[in-house]
Amino acid sequence: MTLTPQISSEETSQLRQDIVTGDWVVIATKRARRPEDFIVKKETVLSDSLDACPFENPEASGQKEDTLIYKKADGEWTLRVFPNLYPAIERGKRPRFIEEGPYFAMTGTGYHELVVPRDHYTHLALMDATMIAEILDAYQDRYINIMNKKSIRYISIIHNHGKSAGASIHHPHSQIFAVPIISPYVQLELDGAERYKKSTKRCVFCSMVEYEREQKTRVVFENEECIVITPYASRSAFEMWILPKEHSPYFERITNKQKISLAWAIKRALGALDKALDNPDYNFYLHTSPCDGKEYSHFHWHFEILPKMSIWAGFELSTGVEISSLEPEVAAKRLRECIENK
Amino acid sequence: MTLTPQISSEETSQLRQDIVTGDWVVIATKRARRPEDFIVKKETVLSDSLDACPFENPEASGQKEDTLIYKKADGEWTLRVFPNLYPAIERGKRPRFIEEGPYFAMTGTGYHELVVPRDHYTHLALMDATMIAEILDAYQDRYINIMNKKSIRYISIIHNHGKSAGASIHHPHSQIFAVPIISPYVQLELDGAERYKKSTKRCVFCSMVEYEREQKTRVVFENEECIVITPYASRSAFEMWILPKEHSPYFERITNKQKISLAWAIKRALGALDKALDNPDYNFYLHTSPCDGKEYSHFHWHFEILPKMSIWAGFELSTGVEISSLEPEVAAKRLRECIENK
Repeated sequence: MTLTPQISSEETSQLRQDIVTGDWVVIATKRARRPEDFIVKKETVLSDSLDACPFENPEASGQKEDTLIYKKADGEWTLRVFPNLYPAIERGKRPRFIEEGPYFAMTGTGYHELVVPRDHYTHLALMDATMIAEILDAYQDRYINIMNKKSIRYISIIHNHGKSAGASIHHPHSQIFAVPIISPYVQLELDGAERYKKSTKRCVFCSMVEYEREQKTRVVFENEECIVITPYASRSAFEMWILPKEHSPYFERITNKQKISLAWAIKRALGALDKALDNPDYNFYLHTSPCDGKEYSHFHWHFEILPKMSIWAGFELSTGVEISSLEPEVAAKRLRECIENK
Repeated sequence: MTLTPQISSEETSQLRQDIVTGDWVVIATKRARRPEDFIVKKETVLSDSLDACPFENPEASGQKEDTLIYKKADGEWTLRVFPNLYPAIERGKRPRFIEEGPYFAMTGTGYHELVVPRDHYTHLALMDATMIAEILDAYQDRYINIMNKKSIRYISIIHNHGKSAGASIHHPHSQIFAVPIISPYVQLELDGAERYKKSTKRCVFCSMVEYEREQKTRVVFENEECIVITPYASRSAFEMWILPKEHSPYFERITNKQKISLAWAIKRALGALDKALDNPDYNFYLHTSPCDGKEYSHFHWHFEILPKMSIWAGFELSTGVEISSLEPEVAAKRLRECIENK
């Protein structure tokens, strides 16, 4: 077995296989960029105007109801969850199935909610761990509430930061999408995890965590419950995954102890990214087991952080193979240097 | 069987399934935008400076050799193909396989070439059909040359138009990537086509072409050999597919007659898109059978045109489910109105 934690100088391009899905990425270091070169000059930024923010006073913006609200002892809200006024999928009834010739569709019913902490200015990377833990509480509370609704098979939780990552409002907010299908990317991970389990009797994510803890080159941060790594087959420079170290198929069963550890891991990971790349735009999201009543003991939930480093052009869009120009080993080293300890 | 070519007014969101891959898209028309509303104000554009163009005089930019050159009778070149000076994958040797703990990789060897027509200013949508046919000749010539090289399993041909679609040079150019793996997205289509063939004894693309020709609502253009449709499960507003009407698994076996028809279909499709959306950025690429020596009689090559209409944000990146806010039936109608006849 050859150990090549970094790409040799004669070979400036590597095809790395995602251990879970079997998909491939290209790591092309031909231009030999340093980690600092990945600081992206933002072409457009979101207005941080407090007056125009629809979340400062949600009622005035047409918001009719909260699905969840957390308050301080004095009655002031600290976090609210409410339906998106411009949903991608519509609340309500069971999906109606539609056939047209050889095609199949269903009405897009489900839930699309927004998770909004009180503070307009402090983005996720800079929040207190306590506030992040409160956001995780909200994720879990809404997940448990929605998972048993009729026809819901998968719940997706995401957080977009910055305009180029698709955020349209400056005020930090997460989104919960509950849909009557299992998402294709999650299905690829589920299938891969099942294949790995069948052939090795082990969880593929547990194997990864064990190896990364031994190896250390791609570990960004670790605490009692969680580990943050730059994945071996990173799809973009500075991609990170946050995983519970114990095998955990279902996010909604996270304990309070794990949640505190996870909040710190998120804070450290995003804080290091913020420092390394000067507040880059990124997407942050959960992959967990479907809630369709089936058993997914082979899966292992995790969060993925995908900084917006490049445009998906024809090659990526046509093949599904992403090209990154920084080795995850180099990214992890830079991120470790940027971890704050306060 | 319910016939619903458009989304009813009570239901403003549909989940549509891709008939080939089984993947899903969301068509959410809540904001009821008109086709004209999809004209994107470009935030950044590429410089069209002739002096700074590396393709006007490739030798001066460090280009050492052509892999293909077409010339006029007077000796002036009309099209050149040469290796990319900044390749994502490197020319040459067989891939070396790399194991690291539970992971697998190989050196990124293969071919990455640029297909450059002479004219700096005229982009693909506005070229003569003769010039487009010459570009298709070059695709085919290079494909046939590269397909038998050692270790090449898939050849990807793409054309990016505009900065937001990933183009970095104004001068129109296509790219050929030859890689030692089968791309995940192509694999999904191959698997889907094989499943469909097993259960129906038919080619899924042929079924689609037949149904769309009967139905007409999603047909943008048709000539003797080719058809242009907006796919039922369009991933973005104004997405189009161009398919040969006859079952054709291998692009490299295209006849001259088919090539002329295809050139006109590309010209009409991109011309209509150019008119409908005022020169939008887009990605245009080929999906064809792998060249790994196996038999793919169930596949059917086609080109896909994906206009850059929105940012892939957390939901799309985490689930693989894209959200489009225009029904393909409405897009096809608008594109038909924009077809030129000259």
